[in-house]
Amino acid sequence: MRTLQVELGERSYPIYIGSGLLEKIGELSLEHGISAKSPHLIVTDERVAPHYLQMVEDRMAEAGFTTVSHVVPAGETSKSLAVFEQVMTTAIQGKLDRSSAVFALGGGVVGDLAGFVAATYMRGVTFVQIPTTILAHDSSVGGKVAVNHPLAKNMIGAFHQPVMVLYDVDTLSSLPARDVSAGLSEMVKHGLILDEEFAYWCRDHASELLALDPEALAYGLERGCAIKADVVSQDEREGGLRAILNLGHTIGHAIEAVGGYGRFLHGEAISIGMAGSALLAETLGRGNHLFEQTREMLSALNLPVVLPSDVSVDEIMDAMQHDKKFTEGRMVFIVPDQIGKVSIVNDVPVNAVRSVVEQLKKEG
Amino acid sequence: MRTLQVELGERSYPIYIGSGLLEKIGELSLEHGISAKSPHLIVTDERVAPHYLQMVEDRMAEAGFTTVSHVVPAGETSKSLAVFEQVMTTAIQGKLDRSSAVFALGGGVVGDLAGFVAATYMRGVTFVQIPTTILAHDSSVGGKVAVNHPLAKNMIGAFHQPVMVLYDVDTLSSLPARDVSAGLSEMVKHGLILDEEFAYWCRDHASELLALDPEALAYGLERGCAIKADVVSQDEREGGLRAILNLGHTIGHAIEAVGGYGRFLHGEAISIGMAGSALLAETLGRGNHLFEQTREMLSALNLPVVLPSDVSVDEIMDAMQHDKKFTEGRMVFIVPDQIGKVSIVNDVPVNAVRSVVEQLKKEG
Repeated sequence: MRTLQVELGERSYPIYIGSGLLEKIGELSLEHGISAKSPHLIVTDERVAPHYLQMVEDRMAEAGFTTVSHVVPAGETSKSLAVFEQVMTTAIQGKLDRSSAVFALGGGVVGDLAGFVAATYMRGVTFVQIPTTILAHDSSVGGKVAVNHPLAKNMIGAFHQPVMVLYDVDTLSSLPARDVSAGLSEMVKHGLILDEEFAYWCRDHASELLALDPEALAYGLERGCAIKADVVSQDEREGGLRAILNLGHTIGHAIEAVGGYGRFLHGEAISIGMAGSALLAETLGRGNHLFEQTREMLSALNLPVVLPSDVSVDEIMDAMQHDKKFTEGRMVFIVPDQIGKVSIVNDVPVNAVRSVVEQLKKEG
Repeated sequence: MRTLQVELGERSYPIYIGSGLLEKIGELSLEHGISAKSPHLIVTDERVAPHYLQMVEDRMAEAGFTTVSHVVPAGETSKSLAVFEQVMTTAIQGKLDRSSAVFALGGGVVGDLAGFVAATYMRGVTFVQIPTTILAHDSSVGGKVAVNHPLAKNMIGAFHQPVMVLYDVDTLSSLPARDVSAGLSEMVKHGLILDEEFAYWCRDHASELLALDPEALAYGLERGCAIKADVVSQDEREGGLRAILNLGHTIGHAIEAVGGYGRFLHGEAISIGMAGSALLAETLGRGNHLFEQTREMLSALNLPVVLPSDVSVDEIMDAMQHDKKFTEGRMVFIVPDQIGKVSIVNDVPVNAVRSVVEQLKKEG
């Protein structure tokens, strides 16, 4: 078992990564001071529940805990205020009190939803994350929790840190190949922004990662979490530095929106976005060969790096205007300087961005 | 203008109390670093809007601010997730960004609702409170914001401190007499828990307070806010001490619930609850004459101190079982030791509470 400590003062917490960890959920909960006198809530989705819910409930019961469970439909639609209210109903009917904890058993959607419940139930209770996807290694560090508003994603949320993250790599074995690649997209992103060596490690170990080799996965997840934890420790509330984690996300979110949040997975969209950021660096005269190097890494992980020819450049440009990252009308982009190093560039001309999106499409 | 600083480290903020303050909303917003480049949201209700919304919008515009406004129906029903989502829609359509602020112009309901919007819009933006009721002096200190769940009040919320509170006593002149008394209930409560002299001051100046004398009101509001601020500074997240602010609230919340949240105003219900706490002190052998002294103070402010004969003791007892203040099954009560001093008593026998409720009814 690997243990990574996320340093956030009195809100610091460990991420446990390894094989067979789900079996230890009861004893780890006791170790982390979760009260056996109060009932707790497990939130999961219909895809994860058949595999792991019973086991988590059983291990918790064996350790002396009372739990209630709430299973939401799989997918982004569960990040709504309506589903949020239903989970709250289960919490109230289960008589959760201020000493209770909310456990998120699942991927990013379940983590965001259950985390927002934990952040706001009785003005905040204990939160435990049990990620079951590779992508969730990203959302399990940083304390960002949220639900969607019909007009915009992640508009309603909070910062709420878990008391522990329990990452059992065995749970990843049931992931479809496309989700594996999409999850590795955020992993290699952490290399691209801050750790050249790790970025190349991801490329060189692509076949083991894609085959879900437990050793390679555990190392990759630990390194990805560690890089993100470093950034978050320095900027918990997203004042400045944390913005570098958005590499590829401005174009990526626009691609997701234009695809109706169904055509492209988040990791696929930001892969294309990261390729776009590399093109933008070249367009702005900030670097050479960056697109070629970035594309090679992403392609090794079976990730898309160009836009399909039927996607409209105008629609992508329009969707970008709604992005949260445009504070006070300025346009901000995260742009690579080299592999493993990025800059936050303010006032990027819209024309340069349009030219990049057009190139991404031409290549496709 | 009186200024009271609430000390909460980097989240410290001032409460401005006085006459004609609403006219200064624009300049005070500039002084507090609110950005004129971002749009801001004013939340108010149908009762307050006709009196003050236009003025606040105008003063903000004159100071160079862009604002959008959202008017909710008056009353507790606006503290729902449905109304919360509508306010969020206005914020998104008004293009609020991370540098935007949410202004709560109104009483406790508007403050709680708008505060929860501020706490969660894009994971938290700036919050400004402009209370227009006496009762709101209580909710404007402490950072508690929330909406209701159909099954329980204030179940969904956060701690989110304002950057300033602007208390214009002129806005209180339009309050109905019953709301004036109910507001003074929380004011005298602050004396009863921590400041004997202030409690007697409230009794001795009851006629000026009930007549909304600006000088008396400003002093009473400042002193009430100051006592609450002292408690909150020592215990921001409600770990222990802050519980003393709940004097009268356990019985009071039960009375509100049994009355269907319409029959008794919050301040009236906790007035009866405070009388009940004094009776409980005597029942537990912790003090003498407390009921008589407490009753005299509350009656001077035209507040009820007994239960009407048609209220069911069983229903009151049942409603108390659902109260948030019962952590891990124990029953906790705030009990006066003398005027101006209270204790947190754990494991109060249910029988003693029932006997108190019966006495409250017998007196009525």
